[in-house]
Amino acid sequence: MRGSHLLKPVPISDKMDLKAYLEEKRTRINGALDRLLPKDHDYPPDLHRAMRYSLFAGGKRLRPVLTLAACEAAGGDAEAALAPACAMELIHTYSLIHDDLPAMDDDDLRRGVATSHKVFGEALAILAGDALLTLAFGVVVDGAPSLLSEGRRLQIVSEMVRAAGSWGMVGGQAVDILSERVPEIDLPTLEYIHTHKTGAMIRGAVRIGALAADATEATMTALTLYGDRVGLAFQIADDVLDVIGTEKQLGKQVGHDHKRGKKTYPGLYGVAESRDRALELADDAVAAIGKLGAPAEPLRAIAHYIVERVN
Amino acid sequence: MRGSHLLKPVPISDKMDLKAYLEEKRTRINGALDRLLPKDHDYPPDLHRAMRYSLFAGGKRLRPVLTLAACEAAGGDAEAALAPACAMELIHTYSLIHDDLPAMDDDDLRRGVATSHKVFGEALAILAGDALLTLAFGVVVDGAPSLLSEGRRLQIVSEMVRAAGSWGMVGGQAVDILSERVPEIDLPTLEYIHTHKTGAMIRGAVRIGALAADATEATMTALTLYGDRVGLAFQIADDVLDVIGTEKQLGKQVGHDHKRGKKTYPGLYGVAESRDRALELADDAVAAIGKLGAPAEPLRAIAHYIVERVN
Repeated sequence: MRGSHLLKPVPISDKMDLKAYLEEKRTRINGALDRLLPKDHDYPPDLHRAMRYSLFAGGKRLRPVLTLAACEAAGGDAEAALAPACAMELIHTYSLIHDDLPAMDDDDLRRGVATSHKVFGEALAILAGDALLTLAFGVVVDGAPSLLSEGRRLQIVSEMVRAAGSWGMVGGQAVDILSERVPEIDLPTLEYIHTHKTGAMIRGAVRIGALAADATEATMTALTLYGDRVGLAFQIADDVLDVIGTEKQLGKQVGHDHKRGKKTYPGLYGVAESRDRALELADDAVAAIGKLGAPAEPLRAIAHYIVERVN
Repeated sequence: MRGSHLLKPVPISDKMDLKAYLEEKRTRINGALDRLLPKDHDYPPDLHRAMRYSLFAGGKRLRPVLTLAACEAAGGDAEAALAPACAMELIHTYSLIHDDLPAMDDDDLRRGVATSHKVFGEALAILAGDALLTLAFGVVVDGAPSLLSEGRRLQIVSEMVRAAGSWGMVGGQAVDILSERVPEIDLPTLEYIHTHKTGAMIRGAVRIGALAADATEATMTALTLYGDRVGLAFQIADDVLDVIGTEKQLGKQVGHDHKRGKKTYPGLYGVAESRDRALELADDAVAAIGKLGAPAEPLRAIAHYIVERVN
């Protein structure tokens, strides 16, 4: 029944303490990122400061947490997925730096702090993004060779390219930017933007975790479906938040998407239907990994957590 | 004797027809690039058009030619090095697109044609660069698996990261941009810019060719030295050309570096001494690969060709 979700928030699973789980994973990811990144004083210091500034500007680490959780859900050791998880966060961070540039979304604030180009200037912001993207691939090929076979590392790089490149995230961002220039877009175009701009990296993060676990084909299929649904749910929830959120909750200017002419799900279908769609997608994601049992419990809780924010 | 080179141009080796060699390699590289790149009409077409536009805007293909030539000099089959060679050209092209942006060097012309952001706008130019960089890694991990072992492909990705990232090309570009804002820089800083902004990718291109050939350690050392010297020679020759060249020869605005406050070798030492230095470096490069015999003849000719332009 449409709209019912608005009255009945999906509860986080009581089988686990998601907050503690996320906290533990984030700490592990942040520690690894700190070790993998050049230090602030490494030459050239301005560039490395800019890289670290955005990477440690308070991100939720959703993508790398998904990589670790997917690895465990597929029966693997999360340690094997740690370097690839960090690589996905490096790619995500570079994409935020470039998206925030004046020529793109022109945002001054991100997660409540000044964006890279406001602090370091546009040139260094572009270069810091370029360097983070490049480093992401180095982290996977050079990191923890004893935990991932050569073949697995190559597959992971291939998955990163698919998720981040012109057939994935960058393609979605390009269509998003171009769609701002036209008065209307159709639903297929909007879905292309969602499934590529945000969805591809979330799907990729999940699949990379499964690859690091040497997942069976059936498990990979289930986790891929989970990643697809969670990715779309996340983007719709984000767009709803842009309409209903407060600046404090969001750490950026509210209603900004609309002002820019950005095409969003709530813009096309309204807030109530968008909320419902996000909640349905989260339920679909949970259903997709039904057979994975207890090790997939964190992934189920994360799916609900992602859409919970809009209730 | 300083200055003697000005009267005595270094002849191209008469043992080989360099022009025909370069033509054959470029044709092979261009064919491979055409196959590796998404087509113009692949969705999203604007992004893929922008990627192809800059890639096929008349580049000399110096880096991929060096990769193929180094592979052959080390006794390998150039076919094994073809995908990695193309990857280096993708990285080089992305770096030109980003360097030309208004926030960076602000160039309207490159190789005699309008730069990416002049044709496609800044947002798409940034994204086309991002997508080319991402694709470069895909080309190596997915390309021609029968010709390169998994371990070799991982080593090549690692070498690309070192050449292109914050310890290589992007680091050099960052220091170059920052040095424009100060009245004077010292020689170590200038050398850092040269060896990183341009040198790292040329050195990397040579080393990747050697890796694809399963080069011995001694051959790798010799080729690395060759790459170092040729990389620096190329940058100095380029800076000299910026002073003495005509717009037609260069395909970009002459004296532009100086106007921007860019620090260059001729700016610090004058044109005559810079020419001498470039020619000496080319001789050093040739000497470094003396033991590699006839298969290294194209590399020797290329070293001379690179500095010949300034005579």
